[in-house]
Amino acid sequence: MSKLYWEDFTPGMVAIYGPRLVTREAIVAFAAEFDPQPMHLDETAARATLLGGLAASGWHSCCILMRMIADGFVNQTTSMGAPGVEEVRWLKPLRPGTQVRVRTTVLETRPSNSRPEAGFVRWLAEMIDEHDDVITSFTTPLMLRRRGAGARP
Amino acid sequence: MSKLYWEDFTPGMVAIYGPRLVTREAIVAFAAEFDPQPMHLDETAARATLLGGLAASGWHSCCILMRMIADGFVNQTTSMGAPGVEEVRWLKPLRPGTQVRVRTTVLETRPSNSRPEAGFVRWLAEMIDEHDDVITSFTTPLMLRRRGAGARP
Repeated sequence: MSKLYWEDFTPGMVAIYGPRLVTREAIVAFAAEFDPQPMHLDETAARATLLGGLAASGWHSCCILMRMIADGFVNQTTSMGAPGVEEVRWLKPLRPGTQVRVRTTVLETRPSNSRPEAGFVRWLAEMIDEHDDVITSFTTPLMLRRRGAGARP
Repeated sequence: MSKLYWEDFTPGMVAIYGPRLVTREAIVAFAAEFDPQPMHLDETAARATLLGGLAASGWHSCCILMRMIADGFVNQTTSMGAPGVEEVRWLKPLRPGTQVRVRTTVLETRPSNSRPEAGFVRWLAEMIDEHDDVITSFTTPLMLRRRGAGARP
């Protein structure tokens, strides 16, 4: 399969991936390993918190989102990785039983200053629920290989 | 045990948590579940990437960091959660066998405008290795309960 290069992305491109079911078991298992706070582990304890009931760790939502974009497009590109994430927003609790989708929007593209064989594509990635409400979003610049000099198919 | 409130944190406070060993097994297991890109899954494939060898998903480093601060202090506070993360930086590859520590620095504190019973503490959280190099960092505002009116012990 031919890979997608930096040149294949242009600002304004939107794509949707999913759906994927987020189960209570997955929420609790993730929290037990990485974010053992009461609101992510136990329904009764969670009811007394701002979340008002059991909800996934915000980091869990980021990881699910990452998996969905890896399957959705990142692994079909010449991605060289990302230096980080600009902003992560946890906007709505991710409840057990939610069918999530991911919406990606290309915000901008620019050549790399230091690597002539590479360019950056800056994406907004949003996890949305059945009501199209945004649960979690982040913005990240992904480095992709450019066609031509230095490009490997 | 008495919990820590918003008032217990002041700008400039620094703390260190850990160490914790990051194993190859953990790196590959996380990547297989959440970030199945070649540089996080397979040594040979990873050698051909910018990382130059197997390294943890950046999201994995965030999750390990979260676990270390949950155990280190978050679960000893009146934390009400965080609305997100301002900036995540993946600065150095996290290699199998690394003993990581976490350094937290209180950047600022401010009362909540909308919730008189709460205030925000803005933290810089850094994962550091044996050479004190920063592997991953993020900045996040944590909402904590204030002492006095509305406070529950």
